Amino acid sequence: MSDLTLETVSEIPALRERVKSRRQQGATIGFVPTMGALHAGHTSLIEAAGADCDFVVVSIFVNPTQFGPDEDFEKYPRVLEQDLAKCAAAGADLVWTPDTSSMYPDGFSTHVTVKALSRILEGATRTNHFQGVTTVVTKLLLSCLPDIAYFGAKDFQQQAIIRRMCLDLNIPVEIKTCPIIRDTDGLALSSRNAYLSAAEREAGLSLSRALRLAEEKIAAGETDLEQIKTAMHELLQATPLLKLDYATIVDPMTLEDITTIQPAMVALIAAWVGATRLIDNCQINPASPG
Amino acid sequence: MSDLTLETVSEIPALRERVKSRRQQGATIGFVPTMGALHAGHTSLIEAAGADCDFVVVSIFVNPTQFGPDEDFEKYPRVLEQDLAKCAAAGADLVWTPDTSSMYPDGFSTHVTVKALSRILEGATRTNHFQGVTTVVTKLLLSCLPDIAYFGAKDFQQQAIIRRMCLDLNIPVEIKTCPIIRDTDGLALSSRNAYLSAAEREAGLSLSRALRLAEEKIAAGETDLEQIKTAMHELLQATPLLKLDYATIVDPMTLEDITTIQPAMVALIAAWVGATRLIDNCQINPASPG
Repeated sequence: MSDLTLETVSEIPALRERVKSRRQQGATIGFVPTMGALHAGHTSLIEAAGADCDFVVVSIFVNPTQFGPDEDFEKYPRVLEQDLAKCAAAGADLVWTPDTSSMYPDGFSTHVTVKALSRILEGATRTNHFQGVTTVVTKLLLSCLPDIAYFGAKDFQQQAIIRRMCLDLNIPVEIKTCPIIRDTDGLALSSRNAYLSAAEREAGLSLSRALRLAEEKIAAGETDLEQIKTAMHELLQATPLLKLDYATIVDPMTLEDITTIQPAMVALIAAWVGATRLIDNCQINPASPG
Repeated sequence: MSDLTLETVSEIPALRERVKSRRQQGATIGFVPTMGALHAGHTSLIEAAGADCDFVVVSIFVNPTQFGPDEDFEKYPRVLEQDLAKCAAAGADLVWTPDTSSMYPDGFSTHVTVKALSRILEGATRTNHFQGVTTVVTKLLLSCLPDIAYFGAKDFQQQAIIRRMCLDLNIPVEIKTCPIIRDTDGLALSSRNAYLSAAEREAGLSLSRALRLAEEKIAAGETDLEQIKTAMHELLQATPLLKLDYATIVDPMTLEDITTIQPAMVALIAAWVGATRLIDNCQINPASPG
């Protein structure tokens, strides 16, 4: 079989059979879990997996349990044919498309929760979101059992929670977090950007502008983080159509708010633009500002 | 290295290295998680693992998170030297003795919960017990990644919860449940039997007697399960020193109370004898009563 042929499977036993067979041939396995509606952020993960690993599995599953009752599960974009073409072009070897009834069979009643990290920031407004994420990611990782799994830095809190979960539960998979991919105007790529009108998209640019502002201030020697947070708030709150949820600077591991400069920091922003929730972030290292 | 030499490891990387090396040689891996204080119930699990698998790992870890604040974590028997001798005699190849700080490192905050099944029966009085069990069993299974893991039928609810958890989270391990081992007087073996005085031990025999009564009534054609439950209650409540928690007949998968005869049933009893909590059970198949 040619390396250029993209295989697809839906059932877990078929997935495991393919992974086992490739592993027995000595291949290392990379895994990119997605909800489909793939953009260049996702394909950068697939490419990173291809650079590290011999066999790259992509899952496409719009997981119902991580959407709140008032969220966009129903309207979340589903474009499987386009996604498969993008997977093939990015170098994926196998696409796994589980169906909901096999992921959540009758009587399903198990949940994985990362307590402290799941209640703050995104978790403060999206009550059961991270429990849905950690449960499905556990299932996806244990079904595929890759050597390395790839997540995007845009969902910074998500990757921090997943790292904590894998450490705490001894899930035998290495987690790699890949950089945010942005459009040329600075907007972080997200499947939800498709919901934005032109005016909303313009408003959405304030997130990356506020992050750049924080970065520049720290690079210029500002050490008063409260002053920097205030400047981010002012920029965002002055943006028409935008409703700020949070804009803060936290420790990258604990996600706790920090008030003094430390070697590793991350600025995190969440805001609604119209009916669409956008998030963005930027890791800041004061020794080598980026 | 001779098959009769028992190896021990404490760190997870060392455990994984040994398991990986044996698996690469084609060995199948059996795993028996225990809290030590081994008795013939445990050694029957080790022997069952040895009959099925090429390499048998036993873990010994008194898991603090499954004990309630008023329970017996501190006084739980710890007899490592004797346990190692019993493991060797029963045919174990490797004993893994993780320490608490490596199982629950700083910042640990992840929990696995099987909701419905964990709140009833044992879970009704032991509030966080099963969350402690499911979290540590996930960690143990994912650290060792055996082909098959062995649990005793005495903790019937525990094995039902672990089966549900493995199914729900796609933990790639087969679960086998092995029969209860009893002393000649009928008392189900338990590490906690060591706490019993002679009089308490005599009282504890009422559990197996009540189960035998239920079994005999069903074998004799009794179809009124409420009548059978009442007879079990009467026998237990007439026992000096014994304080009944529950005595019931449930569905083996859902653990829900049943009121009419069905092909698979399990009678479950929990009672305190003095300060010691005892549990016992018996699976009943009306077609072939045993």
